[in-house]
Amino acid sequence: MNHAAKLVELRRNGYLESVHRGHVAVCDASGVVAEWGNAAQVIFPRSSCKMLQALPLVESGAADAAGLEVNHLALSCASHQGAHMHTDLAREWLAGLGLGEADLRCGPQIPADKEAQAMLRADYQPPCQLHNNCSGKHSGFLTLNQHLGGGTEYIELDHPVQKAVKAAFEEMTGAEAKGWGIDGCSAPNFTCEVGHLARAMAKMATPESMGGVRAKAAKRLVNAMMAYPLLVAGEGRACSALMAAAGGKAAVKTGAEGVFVGILPERGIGIALKIEDGNHRASEAVMAALLVRLGVVDAADPRVAQYLHRPDINRRGIKAAEFNVAEAIFAQGQRL
Amino acid sequence: MNHAAKLVELRRNGYLESVHRGHVAVCDASGVVAEWGNAAQVIFPRSSCKMLQALPLVESGAADAAGLEVNHLALSCASHQGAHMHTDLAREWLAGLGLGEADLRCGPQIPADKEAQAMLRADYQPPCQLHNNCSGKHSGFLTLNQHLGGGTEYIELDHPVQKAVKAAFEEMTGAEAKGWGIDGCSAPNFTCEVGHLARAMAKMATPESMGGVRAKAAKRLVNAMMAYPLLVAGEGRACSALMAAAGGKAAVKTGAEGVFVGILPERGIGIALKIEDGNHRASEAVMAALLVRLGVVDAADPRVAQYLHRPDINRRGIKAAEFNVAEAIFAQGQRL
Repeated sequence: MNHAAKLVELRRNGYLESVHRGHVAVCDASGVVAEWGNAAQVIFPRSSCKMLQALPLVESGAADAAGLEVNHLALSCASHQGAHMHTDLAREWLAGLGLGEADLRCGPQIPADKEAQAMLRADYQPPCQLHNNCSGKHSGFLTLNQHLGGGTEYIELDHPVQKAVKAAFEEMTGAEAKGWGIDGCSAPNFTCEVGHLARAMAKMATPESMGGVRAKAAKRLVNAMMAYPLLVAGEGRACSALMAAAGGKAAVKTGAEGVFVGILPERGIGIALKIEDGNHRASEAVMAALLVRLGVVDAADPRVAQYLHRPDINRRGIKAAEFNVAEAIFAQGQRL
Repeated sequence: MNHAAKLVELRRNGYLESVHRGHVAVCDASGVVAEWGNAAQVIFPRSSCKMLQALPLVESGAADAAGLEVNHLALSCASHQGAHMHTDLAREWLAGLGLGEADLRCGPQIPADKEAQAMLRADYQPPCQLHNNCSGKHSGFLTLNQHLGGGTEYIELDHPVQKAVKAAFEEMTGAEAKGWGIDGCSAPNFTCEVGHLARAMAKMATPESMGGVRAKAAKRLVNAMMAYPLLVAGEGRACSALMAAAGGKAAVKTGAEGVFVGILPERGIGIALKIEDGNHRASEAVMAALLVRLGVVDAADPRVAQYLHRPDINRRGIKAAEFNVAEAIFAQGQRL
């Protein structure tokens, strides 16, 4: 079993200051084609697996029965920042179901979007559950729940919604989910190996390999993410910037504690990575580097370069340090 | 040479989610008495060495010539959060020198203190250099500079102020500073080994081992930090909470990118640690654990416990995960 690999370095005036280690697996339909660190490392995918959690919503027919459009499907896979474009869509979605903010079980969250923050402050209003970065996923859960006729506590482990989500997750990763924990949004999150998460993403990238309703659902969700990069995260966020830069060649999704996944339909490839210390500056840098290496984005594109070589600009505007993705990602020796 | 040691784990429902590795050295006057990871790891101490950077201010007679009190000395060692108690003291200090905010070279910084943020917003004012977490250190530099008669750009590497700082740093660590970089506040920051930084802190803890003006300066600075924990950082900050909990038995100081040092006069011990990925949730946990193990704080004290077992409370108030300092810190086998 391999140790975590050095993936990102922070250098100050050329001297090494900090190091991020982690595990990366790149899969095609046949299995792991590249690995840094240990593809068998067990992780929590956290929000990176939202497109897997959304599969039952589409496969069950619940999405179509509720008249969901492409933008709703994108939001169901989102970790959004609570901007008006996100909260307005979630509010309208729930209203269409005859439901409202109080039916969500994700909890309120201060939005990351500065305009939304300013509006709340100006109106002396607290953030609500619509601002929760997971409110789209939970709107999807509520849509599925209405279709299944389950009880109100749709986030409980033994609720029909979460049973359907677990089944889809296990089928896609191709492995039994041996562990679980409660996510930031209170939904269950299941453990899996990095390599198995990459395998699930490879399946999302090659829906023809699955067939049936799953193939159609996977294709619709991936296309929805790529069609609405800003709905999946927001202005200034890595998922949105990298998907915009990939221009339909990749769907990517971050997860808490340094997880990132990629789905490359054109290449038939899935990626999963985990920074062992949970840091996002590192997970974003590694995902940007992998997309460059796999030929779906341009390293010189400012939307990509900002994550590859994130400069540390100090308070007098001096570039004091720089993050660099370890050369290992770009070195030959992996079948990419 | 040892690798970085596993120091802190994040577990979700008992399953490992993230890991922080690092290097720790504990020294007494005779040398390293305990080590996790690699005491020879070269690091940037960043703000953790502010009390070393303040030695020339006191030793030169500049502090006394300017009539500095204990609170000014505490602020000279601070990474404060720009609360009124910090900015008012720095403003008054500079005025006493016949100087002002514009003479600082640290750059403006948004204060971490929420009350100060709210005041700036209410008044539509931008943050200024007094809000910079290093404005106390820089006020010390300006005080020394006035005494030495140097030019205005006191943050340049070859300026008399920085030459004096470098000499003190090297004498205290007992090693040549082979590298340097520009810090967030634009002052030079010199590299050193973790073990050498711990040695410097052991000297600060045992001023009698040095004698002369340095002994007096070291003792005054350490006592100033312990006398004014809130000036050194602020409400809700680890340095302030841990020093308050230690009640005069320890001075501790954080530095950017996961550095933390401790000075334990009663034990004659110095500590230095670096989390290799730069994360502060980890550096704070390890420092709290070391202070517990060294008997200067109580693990059950809420001011300490909050850093030892920082629970991850989710958005519906559920404890979803917990950080734990690796048992290695508490295991026997080190001479503590």
